[in-house]
This record gives sequence, C-alpha cells and structure tokens, in this order.
Amino acid sequence: MAISCPEATDLTTAPYSREQKLSITDTENANTNRTLSFSSVKLPHLTDFLHDLQIHPNPLDHNPFYRPSDGFYISHTDVILRHILFDLSSPPHSTTYHRAGPRNRVFFDPCQTRAAIVTCGGLCPGLNTVIRELVVALWDLYGVRQIFGVKAGYRGFYSSEPVELNPKLAHSWHKMGGTVLETSRGGFDLHKIVDAIRDRGFNQVYIIGGDGAMRGAVKIFDEIRCRKLNIAVVGIPKTVDNDIGIIDRSFGFQTAVEMAQQAISAAHVEAQSAVNGIGLVKLMGRSTGHIALYATLSSRDVDCCLIPETEFYLEGKGGLFEFLEQRLKDNGHAVLVVAEGAGQDMIPRTDAQKEERDESGNPVFLDIGGWLKSELKNWWTRDHPNELFTVKYIDPTYMIRAVPANSTDNLYCTLLAHSAIHGIMAGYTGFVAGPINGNYAYIPLEEVAQAKNEVDIKDHKWAWVRSVTNQPDFVRN
Amino acid sequence: MAISCPEATDLTTAPYSREQKLSITDTENANTNRTLSFSSVKLPHLTDFLHDLQIHPNPLDHNPFYRPSDGFYISHTDVILRHILFDLSSPPHSTTYHRAGPRNRVFFDPCQTRAAIVTCGGLCPGLNTVIRELVVALWDLYGVRQIFGVKAGYRGFYSSEPVELNPKLAHSWHKMGGTVLETSRGGFDLHKIVDAIRDRGFNQVYIIGGDGAMRGAVKIFDEIRCRKLNIAVVGIPKTVDNDIGIIDRSFGFQTAVEMAQQAISAAHVEAQSAVNGIGLVKLMGRSTGHIALYATLSSRDVDCCLIPETEFYLEGKGGLFEFLEQRLKDNGHAVLVVAEGAGQDMIPRTDAQKEERDESGNPVFLDIGGWLKSELKNWWTRDHPNELFTVKYIDPTYMIRAVPANSTDNLYCTLLAHSAIHGIMAGYTGFVAGPINGNYAYIPLEEVAQAKNEVDIKDHKWAWVRSVTNQPDFVRN
Amino acid sequence: MAISCPEATDLTTAPYSREQKLSITDTENANTNRTLSFSSVKLPHLTDFLHDLQIHPNPLDHNPFYRPSDGFYISHTDVILRHILFDLSSPPHSTTYHRAGPRNRVFFDPCQTRAAIVTCGGLCPGLNTVIRELVVALWDLYGVRQIFGVKAGYRGFYSSEPVELNPKLAHSWHKMGGTVLETSRGGFDLHKIVDAIRDRGFNQVYIIGGDGAMRGAVKIFDEIRCRKLNIAVVGIPKTVDNDIGIIDRSFGFQTAVEMAQQAISAAHVEAQSAVNGIGLVKLMGRSTGHIALYATLSSRDVDCCLIPETEFYLEGKGGLFEFLEQRLKDNGHAVLVVAEGAGQDMIPRTDAQKEERDESGNPVFLDIGGWLKSELKNWWTRDHPNELFTVKYIDPTYMIRAVPANSTDNLYCTLLAHSAIHGIMAGYTGFVAGPINGNYAYIPLEEVAQAKNEVDIKDHKWAWVRSVTNQPDFVRN
Amino acid sequence: MAISCPEATDLTTAPYSREQKLSITDTENANTNRTLSFSSVKLPHLTDFLHDLQIHPNPLDHNPFYRPSDGFYISHTDVILRHILFDLSSPPHSTTYHRAGPRNRVFFDPCQTRAAIVTCGGLCPGLNTVIRELVVALWDLYGVRQIFGVKAGYRGFYSSEPVELNPKLAHSWHKMGGTVLETSRGGFDLHKIVDAIRDRGFNQVYIIGGDGAMRGAVKIFDEIRCRKLNIAVVGIPKTVDNDIGIIDRSFGFQTAVEMAQQAISAAHVEAQSAVNGIGLVKLMGRSTGHIALYATLSSRDVDCCLIPETEFYLEGKGGLFEFLEQRLKDNGHAVLVVAEGAGQDMIPRTDAQKEERDESGNPVFLDIGGWLKSELKNWWTRDHPNELFTVKYIDPTYMIRAVPANSTDNLYCTLLAHSAIHGIMAGYTGFVAGPINGNYAYIPLEEVAQAKNEVDIKDHKWAWVRSVTNQPDFVRN
Repeated sequence: MAISCPEATDLTTAPYSREQKLSITDTENANTNRTLSFSSVKLPHLTDFLHDLQIHPNPLDHNPFYRPSDGFYISHTDVILRHILFDLSSPPHSTTYHRAGPRNRVFFDPCQTRAAIVTCGGLCPGLNTVIRELVVALWDLYGVRQIFGVKAGYRGFYSSEPVELNPKLAHSWHKMGGTVLETSRGGFDLHKIVDAIRDRGFNQVYIIGGDGAMRGAVKIFDEIRCRKLNIAVVGIPKTVDNDIGIIDRSFGFQTAVEMAQQAISAAHVEAQSAVNGIGLVKLMGRSTGHIALYATLSSRDVDCCLIPETEFYLEGKGGLFEFLEQRLKDNGHAVLVVAEGAGQDMIPRTDAQKEERDESGNPVFLDIGGWLKSELKNWWTRDHPNELFTVKYIDPTYMIRAVPANSTDNLYCTLLAHSAIHGIMAGYTGFVAGPINGNYAYIPLEEVAQAKNEVDIKDHKWAWVRSVTNQPDFVRN
Repeated sequence: MAISCPEATDLTTAPYSREQKLSITDTENANTNRTLSFSSVKLPHLTDFLHDLQIHPNPLDHNPFYRPSDGFYISHTDVILRHILFDLSSPPHSTTYHRAGPRNRVFFDPCQTRAAIVTCGGLCPGLNTVIRELVVALWDLYGVRQIFGVKAGYRGFYSSEPVELNPKLAHSWHKMGGTVLETSRGGFDLHKIVDAIRDRGFNQVYIIGGDGAMRGAVKIFDEIRCRKLNIAVVGIPKTVDNDIGIIDRSFGFQTAVEMAQQAISAAHVEAQSAVNGIGLVKLMGRSTGHIALYATLSSRDVDCCLIPETEFYLEGKGGLFEFLEQRLKDNGHAVLVVAEGAGQDMIPRTDAQKEERDESGNPVFLDIGGWLKSELKNWWTRDHPNELFTVKYIDPTYMIRAVPANSTDNLYCTLLAHSAIHGIMAGYTGFVAGPINGNYAYIPLEEVAQAKNEVDIKDHKWAWVRSVTNQPDFVRN
Repeated sequence: MAISCPEATDLTTAPYSREQKLSITDTENANTNRTLSFSSVKLPHLTDFLHDLQIHPNPLDHNPFYRPSDGFYISHTDVILRHILFDLSSPPHSTTYHRAGPRNRVFFDPCQTRAAIVTCGGLCPGLNTVIRELVVALWDLYGVRQIFGVKAGYRGFYSSEPVELNPKLAHSWHKMGGTVLETSRGGFDLHKIVDAIRDRGFNQVYIIGGDGAMRGAVKIFDEIRCRKLNIAVVGIPKTVDNDIGIIDRSFGFQTAVEMAQQAISAAHVEAQSAVNGIGLVKLMGRSTGHIALYATLSSRDVDCCLIPETEFYLEGKGGLFEFLEQRLKDNGHAVLVVAEGAGQDMIPRTDAQKEERDESGNPVFLDIGGWLKSELKNWWTRDHPNELFTVKYIDPTYMIRAVPANSTDNLYCTLLAHSAIHGIMAGYTGFVAGPINGNYAYIPLEEVAQAKNEVDIKDHKWAWVRSVTNQPDFVRN
Repeated sequence: MAISCPEATDLTTAPYSREQKLSITDTENANTNRTLSFSSVKLPHLTDFLHDLQIHPNPLDHNPFYRPSDGFYISHTDVILRHILFDLSSPPHSTTYHRAGPRNRVFFDPCQTRAAIVTCGGLCPGLNTVIRELVVALWDLYGVRQIFGVKAGYRGFYSSEPVELNPKLAHSWHKMGGTVLETSRGGFDLHKIVDAIRDRGFNQVYIIGGDGAMRGAVKIFDEIRCRKLNIAVVGIPKTVDNDIGIIDRSFGFQTAVEMAQQAISAAHVEAQSAVNGIGLVKLMGRSTGHIALYATLSSRDVDCCLIPETEFYLEGKGGLFEFLEQRLKDNGHAVLVVAEGAGQDMIPRTDAQKEERDESGNPVFLDIGGWLKSELKNWWTRDHPNELFTVKYIDPTYMIRAVPANSTDNLYCTLLAHSAIHGIMAGYTGFVAGPINGNYAYIPLEEVAQAKNEVDIKDHKWAWVRSVTNQPDFVRN
C-alpha cells in the first residue's frame, strides 16, 4: 500500500530528506563504541576538619531481624551519573554523586549520638513523614536514643526547649498533614543557633526547609567547620513548588499535583455548567510553574496554563482573550490555570505596592488570579455587553499543602530520611540527600542551595511536553 | 566534644579503618577525569525493509497554537544513557536509547494515516488515559482523522468491527477505570490478525498489553516486516505488577500502590482493634513483589512483607511465627502483606492442582493468602489454645486495578501515548516507548518482551531499601 | 454506694427537687391515653381547574420486571404527620401531608407526555443525579419518550432550543458535578416562559432551583392554572445552604458538609503547625448557618463557629478575641468557621457599598472572612506586638459545591426525582416533593416558597446541639 | 391541548375512576380536624429502685462559655411521636418517647461520677467517635474526671485493668477507624461483670455493641436493679448492618454505604471492560439487606440486588439467569449485589455444614458470593459453551467497616454520645439513645434489644423504593 500524498511529492526529492534518511541509517548501523567523560563531586566529611575521629562498625550488623547481606553496604566509590541526556555527536562532560545508603563503618557511636530535627518555612505534604522516619530509623536501625525536635523553625534552637522524640510518639505522624514540630519563617541568627547546638550537645542536625533554610544550613555548616565542632549537618530540601535544582523533584510535589486536580475539576465543572463559563485556578509557584504545569498535564481539562517562566499577553492576535473567545465559541467554556508567580510584570502596582518588599527584600507578589478575573470580566463586558459570562476563581493553596503525603511521597520521604541518616552516620556533613535520575544520592549542601529548578522552556524535553497542552505559545508574530 | 565509646577503641587502631579513612580522602581529592564507554541501541525503522517511503514535514509546524521553537524537535542522535549507577573503580559499558519526542520529518501523511488501538489482558489503572491520549494527540497534534478501537483484545482484529474514535467521544475517558475498548486474554492468531490489519487498511497499530501481548506484538511486527507491509507497530507495556524490564516502571503502578494503602489501612485497623489481631493483605504480583514492597514502604504500618523473590519459612528460629509472636507480645497486633506469587512452593498441592495448568502452560497459582490465614490459625490454636486470636484477610485486587489513574499515572500515560505517536510518525516500528532513568525513550519491542523486572534482592539498592521495613530476612543461621 | 456530695445537701431538701421527683413519677406512671389533633394539607391537582381529564391505569402495572404487589400503590389518604415534637402537657395541632409514591391511576398517557426539565441558580451537588433520575424513571418506569432539557435556566425556555434526553445519554451523569443542562440566574419572564411551555407542547415541567426559582415556579403554576392549560408543574428545591423550610434538608447538603471537612482539616493543620496559628474557614450560608454548624459538629476540630442567626462581638469580656486568646494560650492554635452571612452588620461599608444592591435588591454581602482576618491581625499586633501570629484563611466554596453527590445525596436525589414523577403522573401540580420527618411527601409549592429554614437558636434542639461545640454564647452579661 | 389516548377511553367511564376523582375532591376539601391517640413509653429511672438519691443542678449552668438559655433544658414531658405515617381513614394509636437532651436537674455529682465505656462485637465506622465524644462531653460539659475504657469487650470488665481516658488522649480518635478500646465477641459472664462494675466503683456504664451486646446490657441492668446498686446503664446500639429496630438507622451505616460504592464501582468497571462481564459484590447483612439495598440505590450502576428478606431463583422464566442473559444482550455487562445472608437456603450444605453452629447456636453462614460465582460460570458454560464470559467477585467487608466515620456519621455519633450522657446524668438507666423520625430520643433498652429492623417488603415505602431498581421481583407466575 503505497502512500501518495500530493504535498509531499516535492519533499522526497529534496536534498535534505535524502540526507536525513542516510544519516539515520548511518548512525544506526554504526553503533560504534563511544565514551563519556565524567568527574566525581567531592562531598564534605567530618574528617575534612576533624582528626582522630573514632570509627565504628555499622550497628546494622547486629540488627536482630535484618542482617546485612553481601552487597548491602554502599561504598564511597558507588556513584550516580548526573548528565544522561545528550547528543551522540557531542557527549558532555558529566559529574557523579555518591550514592545514598548505609556504609559499613560509621563515625558516630549510637549511645553518644544526640540528634536535632528542625522544620523551617511553609507547609509541604510529607514533612511529618520525614520527621517520623528520622526518629524511627535513628532509633530502630542505629539504636540512637537521644532524638530531639526543635520547635518552630530556626528560632527554636535558641528560644525554646527541644522536645524529646521516640518511635511510639511518632507512630502515626505520617498520616497527618503539616508539621508536628511547628514551623516559622525567619529567626535565623547564626551565632545563637550554633551556640545553642553546641550547648545542647547535639552532634547531628537535620534541617528540613526551603531554599532560604538551605542557605542558612550552609552558613551553619561553615560556622561549625570553622569552629571545628564534631557536629554533622544535613539539609533536607522542602519545597512544594519543586523549585530546588539538581534533585529530580522535591517531596510533597506529587501530592500537591494530585490535590490540585480537585481544584481544577471544580473549576471545570463550574465553567461547564455556566453559559460562557471560565474556571480560573491559581496554583503555587512563585518563580517556577512546575505544579501548574504538572497539574495541567495530569488533568487534561485545562485549556491554558500560565507559568512564570513564559510570558503571555491578553489583547490582540495570539493573545489570551482571542484564544479564550475561540474556546468559548467551540466548547462553551474554558479552564485556565495560573501559577502565582506568572504575569507579575503585567499587574499595575500602586506606589505603595512598588515600595513594598517581603522579608527577603523582593517586591511582594500581587494576586495574579484576582487581577486576571477582573481583566476577563472587563474584556467580556466591553466586547460582548449583552451576553452571559461567568468567571469562577479558585485559590486552593492551603487545601493543597496541608494534606498528608500520598503513597508516592510517603515512600520518597521515607527513603530521604533513611538516606540522610546513613550519610550522616557515615560522617558526611554539609550535604543533602535526594534523588538524581531516579536514585538517591548525596550532594553538597552548597551546590543545592545555589541551584534553581526552573521550567526550561528552551529545552527539548519541556518544549514537547508543553506541546501536549496544545495551548497558545504567546509568541507574537 | 570528643566521642569516647569503649567498644570502638580497638577498631580505630585496626588496619582496616585506617585504610578506609585514607581511601576516602584519596578518592575524594583525586576527582580525576574518568570515562564511561557506551554504544547505542538500534531501533527498527520502516526504512529498514521499505524503500522510497515519502517523507513529510511534521504537521506540528503548522499547529495554529503551538509553533515549534528552536530545539523543539528531537533528533535521532538525542539519546538517554541506561546504566548510570556504578563503582568508580570499574565503570561499566553502557548503552543508550533514542529519546522520545517529535521529529522534524515524519513518514506518514496524516490524511492517509489509519490507526488501530487495542487493549489486551487484565485491567490496569490508566488504560483509558492511554487510549484517550492516543486519540486526542493523533487528532489534535497530527491531524489524523481515521482512528479506530479494536474491541476485546487480539481476537477483536478478526472477529469484530473496529469502532471509530474521536476526541469528543474520548473527552472524559481518563476519569474512568477499566478500558472502554474492552479487553480479553488469548485470541492470538498471528495470520488472522496481520491479514485483518492489512485488509482494514491500518498503517499504525498501537498494542497496549502485558508481557504476553508484547511477545505477540513482536510476532506481528516480524510478520509485517517479513511481508514488507507499510505498517508500523508500537507496543505500550501494561502491567500493574510493574514486572516489565528496562523501563523505570509501568503505568498504573503508582495508582495501585496508592489504592493498596486502603487495604493495608483496613487490615491495620482490624488488627489493632482485636486482641492478638493479625491483618493479612494479599496484593498483586505473580512473579514480582513490587506492589507489595512499595505498598509496604509507603504505608509504614506493615510488620512483614512477603514477595516471590525471597523465600521465607514459618516454624522455628527466625521464622514467621516466631517473629509474629514477638510483635503480638510487643504491640498486640501485626500486619502482614503478601504478594500473590510468594510462597507458592510451600502450599501443599492436591494431585489435581499439580496437573492443572493455566492458559500459558504454567502451574496455576494457589491462594497464598487463604493458606497463610489457615496456617496462622492452626499455629495459634496449637501454641496458645486459650488465648484470643484473630486473622482478618483482605484481597483488594479488583478494587485496586479497576480505579482511574491518579495524577502521577495520568501524566505518565499522557506522555507515553504522545511518545508512541511521535515515534511511529517518525517511522519507527517494532518499538516501545517508556521512561528510562526518568526520561522517555524508545526501546526495541523485542528487548522489552524479553526483559523481566524482578526485585533484585542482591542489589545494593534493594538491600537497603528492604532494610527500611526492619522485617526478618528469613536467612536460616 | 451512697453518693455524698456536700454542695448537693441543701438541694435534696428543697421543695423544687421533691416536686420534680414526684412529677416524674406521676407522668411516667400515668401513661394515660392522649390525643393529638391534626388537619390535612390540600395539594393542588390538575382536576382543580381542568375537567374531563382522562384517567389511565399506572403503566407500572405492566413493568416486565417489577410488578406492583399488594400495598405498592400509595393512596391519597396516606399521609405523614408534620409536628411530632411536643410537650405532653399541651400537644399541638398538627398538619399532615400526602405521602409521595406511585398512585394506581395516572392522569397522563405516556405516549402523550412531553416533559421539560430546567435547572436554575447556583451549583449544588446532586443536580445531575436529579436530572438523570427524572430521565431514567420517566423512561424506564412510565414509558415516557419525549423528555427535554431546557438549557441555562429560566431564559432557556424562550431563548434556546431544548435538548432531547434519554437514559443512554444520562447514564453516568450522577457521577459528575455541576449540571449538564447549564444554569444561570435571572432571565425570569413569566409570559415568555409560559408561552414557550405551551408552544413547545410540554405538559410536565420539572423546575430545579433555589428559593427565587421556587417563587418563579409558583407564578408559572398560577399562570398555567389561570389559562387552564393541561400542564403540571413540580418544583424540586435546590439549595446547598439548606435554607428551605418544611423539608428535612435539601439535596447536596450532606455532600457539602462532607467536603467542608477538607477545608476545616487544612485550616486545622495550618493552625497547628504555626506558632499562635489561627485557621479561618468561610463556608456557604447567606441567611442560614446550617453548613457551618453541621461542618463544625462533624469535624470536632473547630473552636468557634459563627453563623448569621446569632450575633457575636470581638472586643471585651466574653468577646471573640478574649476567647481566642485563651485558646491560643491553652492549645497554641485555634480554628474558626464562619458562614458567609455572619456578622454582616459589623463590617464597615463604604458609601458605594451602602448603595450597592444585588439582583434582588438586597444589600450586597461583604467578605466576612477577609474582614475577620484583618481584624484578627490588627488585634494581635496591637496586643502582642512581638509575638508570632498567623491567620490562614480558606474559602472553599466552589470546591464544595462543584463535586458529585455522595451516596447519601445520590439516594436522596433518586427518591426525590421518583417522588416528583409519581406525583405529577398522578395529576398533582404546583407542588414540591421532599422528605418530612424522614419520609417523602408532597407539599404545596407555595408553602415551600414562603418557608425559610433558619437555625432556631431558641429551640430546645438547637440549643443543646450548639452546646456540643462548647463555644462562647456571646451573651453580654 | 386535550390528551386523547385510545386505551384510556373505557376507563374514564368506569365507576372506579369517577369515584376516585370524587374521593380526592372530598378528602381534600374536607380538611376536617381529626385526632390521633397516643400513649407515652415509660423509661426506667434510678429512682424506680433507689430512694433518697440526691439531686443536683446541672453543671452546665456554670459552663464558662455556653450558659443555658431559656428553653435549653429538655423536660421529661418533651416527647417524640413514633408512628407518623398512616391512612387518614384510620389513624393508628401511636406512642411517644422522651426527647434526648440535657435536663436541669441531674442525679450524679460529677466529682463522684466514675464512668466505664466498653465496645463489643465487630467493627463499625464511628466507634471511636462515640468513645471520644463520651470522654470529651463527660469531661468538658459535666466536669467528670474519672472516665475509664474497658478493654476488649465484656470480658474486659473482669479480666483486665480498665484504662483511664481524658480529652487530650482522645483528641484525634474520631479520625481513626476501629476501636481504640479493642473489641471481642462473647465473654459475657453476668455475675463476674456486675461484680466487677461494683468493685471498681463504676456508677455509669456505657455499653456500645450489637444486638447480642444489647441483650447482655439488659441482663446487666436487671441484675443491677435487682441488687439495688446505684449504677446507671446505657446501651449504644452498634450495627453496621442497620438491623436494629425502632431507631431510624444505626451509626456507621451511611459510611458503610458510601464505602460500598467503591466496590460496586470496581465491579462495574471490571464488568464493562470484559466481554459478557459480570461484576458480583457481596455486602454485609446477615439477616437484613439494608446496606445492599441502599448501596444499590445510591450507585445506580447495579442491575440486581439480592437481600435476605426476599427470595430469588436462578433458572427458568423470571429467574436470575434469564434476567442476566437479557442484560448481557442489551448492555454487554451486568452488576450484581448480594447481601451475605441472601439465598442461604439455596446453597447445598455438606453434612458437616449442616451440623455446624456459630457461637450463638445458629447454622453458620455459607459464602453466597462464592456459590453464585460458581453457579453463574456453570450456567454460562452450559448454555453458551463457546462465548467469552467473566465473573469478578469482590468481598469488600473489612475495607468497608474499618474506615473512620464520614461527616454524617461523625455528627450522628457525637449527638448519640451527648444524648446518652445527658440521659444518664438525669438518672435514666436501662435505656438507649437514638434518632426516631429524625430526632434524638430515649428508648427502653429492653424494647431495642427485642426489635429487629428488617426491610419490610410488604410496606408501601419499600415497595416503591425497590421499584427504583427496576430489577426482577422473582415472583413466579
């Protein structure tokens, strides 16, 4: 059955397509061996600045139930490769990270270990699972008995008594949203914090928090190293927005995407049930649109998704209004998802708003959802004065981030906590545990604190992923 | 603060630990460049056996909404590396697979394309999302208008009329469990099927099914190649058990793990509310225990998880009964998760059962859950004749597999369907689309049909993951 | 075991308690027969204004599956008593309503029946179930084949073509939120509507809507009666707020209360996870606080629930601030639920807001949630300038009302639709079907349109129910 | 528009229909006053067998937050009428029950009150809410500080130490399935129990359990009365089957019906996705089919529902097979719901099974689901040897009963617990609290222990409700 298509006739004789076919054949047949060069990333270790530390056999050796089998322990030469997508014609130089997991020698004596856990910043599904698993695994696997929760974020180190934790207390925490340790923003006072850590005798510090908290953790680690204290610090990045780089994704993100479906679904129903109905959902994401994008791709009910990484415009050819007008004409309704950080430059600011700064000195975010709702109404009233029109605006933020982790995130949080413990027991410090290309690895804290995970709209991967939505590209011709 | 631990004193002077410390420093500091060799995997293409095929520009170029930007199209030299976990001292030889995504030239004229979609085997969350997205993306992105559903599995090709599909019809299918195309086992008659495909004029065949269906797809592809028909075949592996190899995981698996939590939770509640209560849950997994293992790790309420990949025993030291007795003594209750394929050798078979074979000629599976329940009762009555005891057995199989996909799986199924379409439009055939190390790739169908994804209990990764459960290792001393 | 309690000593000798004891004994022993008088409520019937209507045997007699048994048909003397709570010493005069259910004679020939269904006003869980069941029961039970949906509320009668409905189309509608018929507010033009009903040949009109729509239905019924048209009208009250009187509760209400738990739960988690955290949830209820009250009683996580029926104040002794301060001191957090109509008099209005009127001429509602949030912040900053404090405000309105009905409401909607059909087929008109004291009854439309279901704070029942919350009564001493 | 229908012509001249019309007019117009006679039911009270009990003002008078307003207290003459459905021509003699709620005088001094709570029998959603609310309301509203949980059912009174309970401990119990007090069957030893109650100094006993436990509670109450002990006993009926009479419904029932939807939905999906697929769900209900019937009516996806109260047969005209054959022909699939007690007489019993008796001496229940599945397969293989056919059988029992209560049941359980406390504090004993015609009332324990709530298939109400399913009536012609 020969395919014959008039428009295609010319093409087959064009030099390009010949070449194309040849090159396919060539490459495929060749299948020659190639090489990829890589170097390994150095991870800070207590022995970098402390000497004569005692080494102990891993207490897991004496676990009554699960005795380490051959190949159970991960060695410091077990690595994960980071850059694995490339063009065959120019393989990149890649880096490797240490694999997470138990080591056969540890640098902490369980009976001398005193661990502190703190949560900083906003809520994120899975926080309590991470806390629970830190407690349970330190206790059950390593035999640590002095485990403390620091209340209400960084300020808790110096302003309140830590609370003693144990597995019985923590038993059901993974089924609860929020954080049992309470959390707060700010309160970072480096010297007070390090003094308190030292004075309370903590030698393992687990810091769960967002990018700000990770930058704080770097400073704490540096100060500890500077003072040559025998205290290891691990960061556990928490960001429901998934805006932390290097790691595959942050915990709680999948749960947030799942919960966002409810809001999108409600917006869809409201839009469908009205005449010229528009459902508008604002989702979390100040500098990155991951939640909005993933929620859109998962839902399949969204007509257009606006994120901080791409620009858009309202009026004129190729603009949002034109697109929505067409959708209303075709389907009678439309659904719009917008990340909270999208279109900030488009919203007129009062003089006061221009001056206003948040705690970090950045201009405050304005409510893109409320503004869009009002712009949509103005547009319709102007262009279709006598036709029905409805915009229903939903902001589900707290209902998304305050839920317990789903099973995917529960598993993630569990492995994250175990990874962190195995790493810190092995003497690593100033590091972060997290998945890279699907496997848990250790990454220098500093590297993570500087990285940023934006939706790279120029990248192959995202370009075609975004094509799935079949929404306007807002590229003015 | 010097740590002093008596037991550790000797160790620090032992040669091993010195060496250890040195080697850590050495490796870390060195950070020398190293290389990894790899070769690329050849993917079957229509041009392998057909010549003078016409090439067309990708219809996406003329998408009114989303115009391909720089870097939008994936080239045939864009690859993904497979083996990315290794020991620095001996980097393995790795392989690369073609990245999935749109190509800038296609081998099908949309107006001549006639696509057939079929679902085979048991249900799996996400089936309808895959079908919906095949329909929607063929229609919306490539402009294909002849899209057909083949009813009730392989036999549908030759025994019933295909049904015409379109986006309006498929609009809400991703919110429904099961498969709108119906499915069945068996019915594979190679020549009847290929004749029917040819006679009905299909030139794109999308086969969604389990390992048996994938082996069938290989035969169909071989037969088509042998007859030199201009028909491309793509396999979309469906297995709720996650037992298909090479790809990261199969669609529907995360949803199944999520749903399994309900059953585990019910078992936990029943066990907790009774005196010496045991909750027993049987989960899917004939040859692999992925669902049981992931559900256990996600739940944190399970005391012991039994999977086909590991052996276990009931009586005596280190056996299941001893372990459970201890847990009942400590906590008053216990929860057991068992994969349906676990412990098959332990269940006594009647002569009839010894003879019985399933459709594929394998011994039939016996009900491990029912057998365990009865063994548990016998044990307790024997050893504790006057004490209360309860076993509640839950088999949630159909309630797990008949649900719609959750958002993680919905996104997966969407990208899977789009990947399959982009690949087939680009002329690839006899292939499978699926995620490798987190990115979508194309893999030869034959390779996937032969691979098997078992829980590798000797692997580092799984060894420490299993340590999380802190359950017995059933290694007899 | 004699109880001896010093404070009680005096009381036992007091005349009151003697009397009390005696009266108990007397009443109980007497157990004499008493009587309650009642009269029955007249229901409008087509024969009131039309004569010589033909009577038919009920088509259910010939249902191939379910043949009416003895006692299947309800007779016009089967009634339900309305006032069933009273003081034995003065039984009230009560009324009775006709029981809903099939009659053995009907006034419509199925092959001549032409039914119209319309939905008016805001969304409410269960709307689609009611529509579906009207379609399915008219078709399956009575053999009616001309069933039409009127689009987008009252205006749809005269401004758009009705859409033909059938059971196959309606099959899965009960699993969808919203209304497949679309809805809108306003558009009520009596003569246009009645003309359209007559011109399109409808003889059964099913009007699903809120109190405004019910008042419209009364007018339509009056006009039809005045014109002596052979058209029966039934109202199906829809109000997620549960503010319609006489009937036990309105459909969708239970679903709304269930969904509200999510918002309350999120508010609770946010409050608990902060230092001095307050979770604030605004729930639907403009003139009545049923959703807020039921959601509070169901949740058990709410510290205080504010409804339109009761006043409250912020400052001073017994005020909200004092109460919250105590709760924050005791528990570290507090949860507040507020109905949208609560405290409207307390919010300062701008001159513009004072003038503003909604479509019905009433003052517009201001956002009590936003106002309270701001008042709470001002209070805390004023009284505790250096202490952390957080208010998280959640408005889940659309996420509550756009969901499908839960099973309780699905069953309710099903019986409601069947009741309406049985009544209309029996020739009743200008009526409403709904549950009274747990049983379905027919009530004159006019009576329902005038009734209002407020939380009667003076009533025994609600007084003690409200005591369950143990919140302040805001009665100034 | 005159309706003219040939078949109807004769009828209109028939004497019956004339009469019918007249009688309607007569009755409606008359609207004469009528009377209903009733007598009030005597409730046992401590003063029936104890004299000189001290009376105290209700501690609620001094609640710092909620001060009783006028009409807050319920008096012993406040009643609820039971029989409210009747035929106008012959109003029945009815009875009244005391309304539940706080009384202004109580017979217990809070500081002398010592309460015991016990749960008996199988699990039911809401058990923990009842326990929590008993604890919280005794503590918060009445100031009782000695509250104890009896472990593991009746045997716990004499075989284990009671555990002390308080609101802090109970805080989140309503969010957990099962019973925190543990439960068991049997263990009823009257004298040991009453001795233990007396010896431990309990003077309020709250017994939560099924019909067996209620009969036990009657005996305990009788024994206490006989011994003239100052101990009040209240029963809180727990039966997920809803088979307890007089009260409107039992707690947990609505949650069970809601959860059953998941199983029915899975069965529906499995059936729809197969060729000639049948989904079969077994639901709880040994002697009554309430869950099966309500779940069927709520779901709208069920083709046939079989309950213990009605007979059915498989073969021949009007039988189940004929009906299913038709449905498979029409729709390609069918869903069957069967209550566990249905069709017990149809299942062949082995001699051993004929002898076997459960703990109460009744013949054991056989698995109707397993038997039906096998009968269905045999039938199809016999009649359609070469056609595909699938039966998927789901038994969701534990997954239904082990969940936490939904909001409807949470509210119910809360009011139930508060009602029980108000009643017992007022000196009532040997009673049950529960809703009658939608309002909470007190009923003599003995009356409840004897009543049985079966689906009355002869009753108007159920007859027409069952017509909703449009399933066969299995009446042989």
